[in-house]
Amino acid sequence: MGKNRLEAFSDGVLAIIITIMVLEMKVPTGGDLVSLKPVLPIFLSYLLSFVYIGIYWNNHHHMLHTVHHVTGAILWANLHLLFWLSLLPFVTGWVGHNHFTPAPMALYGVVLLMAAIAYFMLQHAIIFSQGKDSILAKAVGNDFKGKASTILYAAAIPLAYFRTWVAGGIFILVALMWLVPDRRIERALGEHDSR
Amino acid sequence: MGKNRLEAFSDGVLAIIITIMVLEMKVPTGGDLVSLKPVLPIFLSYLLSFVYIGIYWNNHHHMLHTVHHVTGAILWANLHLLFWLSLLPFVTGWVGHNHFTPAPMALYGVVLLMAAIAYFMLQHAIIFSQGKDSILAKAVGNDFKGKASTILYAAAIPLAYFRTWVAGGIFILVALMWLVPDRRIERALGEHDSR
Amino acid sequence: MGKNRLEAFSDGVLAIIITIMVLEMKVPTGGDLVSLKPVLPIFLSYLLSFVYIGIYWNNHHHMLHTVHHVTGAILWANLHLLFWLSLLPFVTGWVGHNHFTPAPMALYGVVLLMAAIAYFMLQHAIIFSQGKDSILAKAVGNDFKGKASTILYAAAIPLAYFRTWVAGGIFILVALMWLVPDRRIERALGEHDSR
Amino acid sequence: MGKNRLEAFSDGVLAIIITIMVLEMKVPTGGDLVSLKPVLPIFLSYLLSFVYIGIYWNNHHHMLHTVHHVTGAILWANLHLLFWLSLLPFVTGWVGHNHFTPAPMALYGVVLLMAAIAYFMLQHAIIFSQGKDSILAKAVGNDFKGKASTILYAAAIPLAYFRTWVAGGIFILVALMWLVPDRRIERALGEHDSR
Repeated sequence: MGKNRLEAFSDGVLAIIITIMVLEMKVPTGGDLVSLKPVLPIFLSYLLSFVYIGIYWNNHHHMLHTVHHVTGAILWANLHLLFWLSLLPFVTGWVGHNHFTPAPMALYGVVLLMAAIAYFMLQHAIIFSQGKDSILAKAVGNDFKGKASTILYAAAIPLAYFRTWVAGGIFILVALMWLVPDRRIERALGEHDSR
Repeated sequence: MGKNRLEAFSDGVLAIIITIMVLEMKVPTGGDLVSLKPVLPIFLSYLLSFVYIGIYWNNHHHMLHTVHHVTGAILWANLHLLFWLSLLPFVTGWVGHNHFTPAPMALYGVVLLMAAIAYFMLQHAIIFSQGKDSILAKAVGNDFKGKASTILYAAAIPLAYFRTWVAGGIFILVALMWLVPDRRIERALGEHDSR
Repeated sequence: MGKNRLEAFSDGVLAIIITIMVLEMKVPTGGDLVSLKPVLPIFLSYLLSFVYIGIYWNNHHHMLHTVHHVTGAILWANLHLLFWLSLLPFVTGWVGHNHFTPAPMALYGVVLLMAAIAYFMLQHAIIFSQGKDSILAKAVGNDFKGKASTILYAAAIPLAYFRTWVAGGIFILVALMWLVPDRRIERALGEHDSR
Repeated sequence: MGKNRLEAFSDGVLAIIITIMVLEMKVPTGGDLVSLKPVLPIFLSYLLSFVYIGIYWNNHHHMLHTVHHVTGAILWANLHLLFWLSLLPFVTGWVGHNHFTPAPMALYGVVLLMAAIAYFMLQHAIIFSQGKDSILAKAVGNDFKGKASTILYAAAIPLAYFRTWVAGGIFILVALMWLVPDRRIERALGEHDSR
């Protein structure tokens, strides 16, 4: 099987996830700016989730660029990743509607953690299929960012019950870590690690 | 007509079906973990339906790989399959909201049965268009899995009224049967059958 | 501009229209078969609209097959067609929720009529862009089916106020007229016309 | 990275945005034409937003035609544009449900303004990546339309509080400015500017 349909299907699912999240922002009945106030936390959680889906789409894109042959393992690892990302609209809505209270924030962390693990599994399925001269294995390197994100998400889950803003800060921090053009940082960190 | 647009349209519809099912998981008003409890059965039915759509997308993918020329019969058989699959979000929601009671479980079986029959018809439309040297006919063989699934779905419908967990068990069993990498199983079963 | 993105965008919009229509079938709160009863008329109107979108997708497909160069007129004529088709979920829901009463049936006819006119305009925009040796112009011929459908839709609008089942019968009849493999019928009718 | 997936993802998101806007037109419970009356303002705001998404899709299309190599900046500038456009269904619903009152009209202007700025940023990211012989830079010229639109949106925001119909008129005017086949107008204006 070629990878075209895998990409097309993943693009479709990601495009729908990123767009239906906006449906959680219910149109207020009032017609003045004050009636927008309850929508604001939902808007903020939507913004963060939009960025996360954007990051995933971007990374997914680059990762599949190295794939030539799609195995059954890759296909199901990909669907597994899409499953966890498909839960993002639900937790985004829950976080927004409850104004960033502990349980929704913790569950948001759980979904991000599971998506990160699913991404990691997809990465391994691709590297395994490519054999020892894997292009992806070289590109990924020690995968500092991936490992750091996973640890940070895992830390954010209990921290949400301690101080919700700490969990929120972690989610924003991880997003920024992926947004910042990373070549130099990664190289620097890579050199740091190899010392 | 080429098959590219048929694939693109099917991918689009399947991507939307798999994603809008998550909209049945309504965001709870409460902000603690207890308020997630009513969402749990909907989550479980969503998980099962997600796997089913994943299996259909996967098989559809492989089947269309053998098609070179799209006839009118293939096109309408494909739309017929998509019609039944498009009803999955509805029955998934009904099953989840009613905590796996008999009627929703039976209807879930009906939709799976009709989709299996529609898939079977699409398979035949493709084999018919390819003539006697059909690649698909050889690949499908005696179609043990397809026939077994159809019989099991049909059995699950009355069984849902007897014991709902038996119907649920059948739906999970059939999904697992398709998920397990099947080359060896199919070959083994094929040899068994040919004895 | 190439036609690939025009096709991809149209496929996306049609795939979403055909799938979100199913959202009008609200999951009933009751868990027995009787509680499905109010969903039945919505299911029937969904079935008819599904077939109509299928027919439009099929015909759109064949029509664009003849296009090599996409002009601004083609692009906007295509968006105009998608606009009317995007209203189908709304009228389908209205028809289903009101059990086929006159006003919804008439509006259903209005949307089908406007879509037929929009399709006709798109056809002309393509023929105009292809010049006098237009492949599409030859393929379309006297466009018996297109003209007959337009007249029948226009007739169904007032008839819906007289007898709703007559309008309903017309909508089913036109759908069947397009579903039946048409080569021979069209040729026969074409010969009949040319006498 | 190639631009195919960027186009496919953008097409998907725009197709979903243009289609889910219609979900704001809630099916009325009444079955006569009078019960359609409250839907009318939502229909009108939907029509305007449909045209705007159509214009964006069209322009996006032409702009990406000049791109050969997708940089990280282009990718994120594109997601930034899609973010603002994804808010259009929300403001369209708000405008329609509140019958064109000042605050919703002003917010509609804010979203259009932000989308115009995002489009401008995407344009610059592409021109920057193409270097001094940029094809896009030549095609865009002095970008009269883009600048005029941005100023008009910015003007419409305070004007919505003064007279809502003035803001509404501006939104329609800008849409028409983009709809009218523009080669000649642009050339004329270009000559006028270069004097």
